[in-house]
Amino acid sequence: MLPDAMVSSKRILRIRSGLARFHVDAILFWDMKNIRYLTGFTGSDGALLIGRKEQILMVDGRYTNQAKREVEDAEVFEYREKVDGIETILTGSGLKSIGFEPAAMNVQTYLKLKEKMKGLALVPLSSEISAIRTVKDEMEIAHMKKSSDISFQAMTAVQELIKPGMMEKDIALELEFRMGRFGAEQIAFPTIVASGANSSLPHAKPGSRRIEKGDVVMIDCGAVFQGYHSDETWTFVIGNGQDRQKEVYAVVKEAHDRALEAVKPGVLCREVDRAARSFIENKTLGKYFSHATGHGVGLDVHEAPRIASTSEHVLETGMVVTIEPGVYIPNLWGIRIEDMVLVKEEGCEVLTRMPKDFKVLN
Amino acid sequence: MLPDAMVSSKRILRIRSGLARFHVDAILFWDMKNIRYLTGFTGSDGALLIGRKEQILMVDGRYTNQAKREVEDAEVFEYREKVDGIETILTGSGLKSIGFEPAAMNVQTYLKLKEKMKGLALVPLSSEISAIRTVKDEMEIAHMKKSSDISFQAMTAVQELIKPGMMEKDIALELEFRMGRFGAEQIAFPTIVASGANSSLPHAKPGSRRIEKGDVVMIDCGAVFQGYHSDETWTFVIGNGQDRQKEVYAVVKEAHDRALEAVKPGVLCREVDRAARSFIENKTLGKYFSHATGHGVGLDVHEAPRIASTSEHVLETGMVVTIEPGVYIPNLWGIRIEDMVLVKEEGCEVLTRMPKDFKVLN
Repeated sequence: MLPDAMVSSKRILRIRSGLARFHVDAILFWDMKNIRYLTGFTGSDGALLIGRKEQILMVDGRYTNQAKREVEDAEVFEYREKVDGIETILTGSGLKSIGFEPAAMNVQTYLKLKEKMKGLALVPLSSEISAIRTVKDEMEIAHMKKSSDISFQAMTAVQELIKPGMMEKDIALELEFRMGRFGAEQIAFPTIVASGANSSLPHAKPGSRRIEKGDVVMIDCGAVFQGYHSDETWTFVIGNGQDRQKEVYAVVKEAHDRALEAVKPGVLCREVDRAARSFIENKTLGKYFSHATGHGVGLDVHEAPRIASTSEHVLETGMVVTIEPGVYIPNLWGIRIEDMVLVKEEGCEVLTRMPKDFKVLN
Repeated sequence: MLPDAMVSSKRILRIRSGLARFHVDAILFWDMKNIRYLTGFTGSDGALLIGRKEQILMVDGRYTNQAKREVEDAEVFEYREKVDGIETILTGSGLKSIGFEPAAMNVQTYLKLKEKMKGLALVPLSSEISAIRTVKDEMEIAHMKKSSDISFQAMTAVQELIKPGMMEKDIALELEFRMGRFGAEQIAFPTIVASGANSSLPHAKPGSRRIEKGDVVMIDCGAVFQGYHSDETWTFVIGNGQDRQKEVYAVVKEAHDRALEAVKPGVLCREVDRAARSFIENKTLGKYFSHATGHGVGLDVHEAPRIASTSEHVLETGMVVTIEPGVYIPNLWGIRIEDMVLVKEEGCEVLTRMPKDFKVLN
């Protein structure tokens, strides 16, 4: 048996052993990232049924061969129309209650399934299911180190190109091209390059604005390797920084460092958020820190757990999360410092590699 | 009043005048492309309520300023949590039945909304709503000509680089980089570059395979300009083509031309599919044409109408659709020829620009 199939087999067993706790006879997985995680199938459409005995991956004709090649640990069933395929599998299976991921299924499909399978209870499983991928194994961590390396190499190379006069969107394009060259399968999300006042918007799209001396420039980017994402934000100044920029940078950096310090197994995620937020609040910049401190990363760039003020999630060894406090002064500039870290027994290991000290380019 | 707002205003009126036909008091739009179409808002999250009197765009704090800047024709309401925001707007509004797009809303949200607003009927509107963007106006067509130009320029430039020994994924990367350089906001979808036996898979991902003499190479790519997508497939041969490749190319090209010929206002989409499919079937290649002949394109790369064997949709002047027959010989190679065309009174205009005659490179 291949190591991959052993991994898949263990993960499927973990789901199966949870069926009683979820009070369902089987779970119908719909989220393609969960299906990839459980079976190794990398196609873009399908469904996976895991019951006490059943482990059936349903795909359409485009994916039958690929599924048979990639999946060792589930039976592959080909359908022409997804809902009809599910009906065929479930009819006569004796299964009475089927759990599913309500955030991954749309209402159109849900209503069709309910209509077709009237005797069946469809049970939405929310938080239980969203947490199945939070703890990463060695292979997953190796992939995330690699995706972090790729974005680091791309940022390091592009750093040489950044000069006053260059457009934000051209910096983004160069970064994305280089991530591809350095081995990214794809970009983790549309790269953010925000300069000057644009950096005061946490989610700015790179545009035609040209970098000027004195600008704050914020770059938020990531690569995907073997399906696993990296996520990192690097903020620097062009020309010579103003004192106020240096001061705020130091506050955000200290908040970032305090959150890193708080990351340990057994700690509530909201405590990590608190560590960053309370420091920024004490410096009277709290109202400019308008988002959560971080989030889990893996097969999705945003996944459980959230590192937010209300998050009841508890950190465990093997989780990978971002720590990304930011301060955004309206219409002036913004500073965000983001690393992706692995929770370890004694604290955490930073996986992203750009240095985060205050930096002036050119 | 700005021209953009006039467009938005007309589109909203069109929805409003359809409320009675849909048997609802209002429609809650959830699909961000429909919201962009109706209001001009380009953010990535929000909801839009259109009732007999109401036209309210609901967004979170990240998007309030952007929404106020972009949207002339709807009131902007800021929420902290989306479902709560909708509850606030609907409570006391007197609205009793709310239509929504069931394919755009997930079950988690749907169950929350139903739980919170027990007195309200949530009415799924499927086909009626999916067709609101099918007919393009002059501005939309201009944007799609521009996105087609961008991918044409990129393919033309990359054509010079393609040589035996080059990896599929590097060709894809060069294409995507050049689309960005020529003005694409983003790529329309992950570029397909499939060579040799990989081209026999309609949806292959570009990989490490190196182009060889004698390969069929299939490139399927598109650009986005002002939100509007292009979609085009170009298949060619490296070195000198085999007779069988030329023969099959000629069949696919003739099927493509016949489908183009069939495109006219008033024609059923399935008749267009038939025009391509029957020709391929007559050449005994029908079993290798494993997908539909085409689909609508616009703010989404795949939107209504479908050009498929069962499609009851009728073509109208101003629709933009792809025509993309393909023949895939298992384990050998595949040929797809795809253009994006505008339905005009007298027939159609081809918007994509790569020549589609049989071509041998190098």
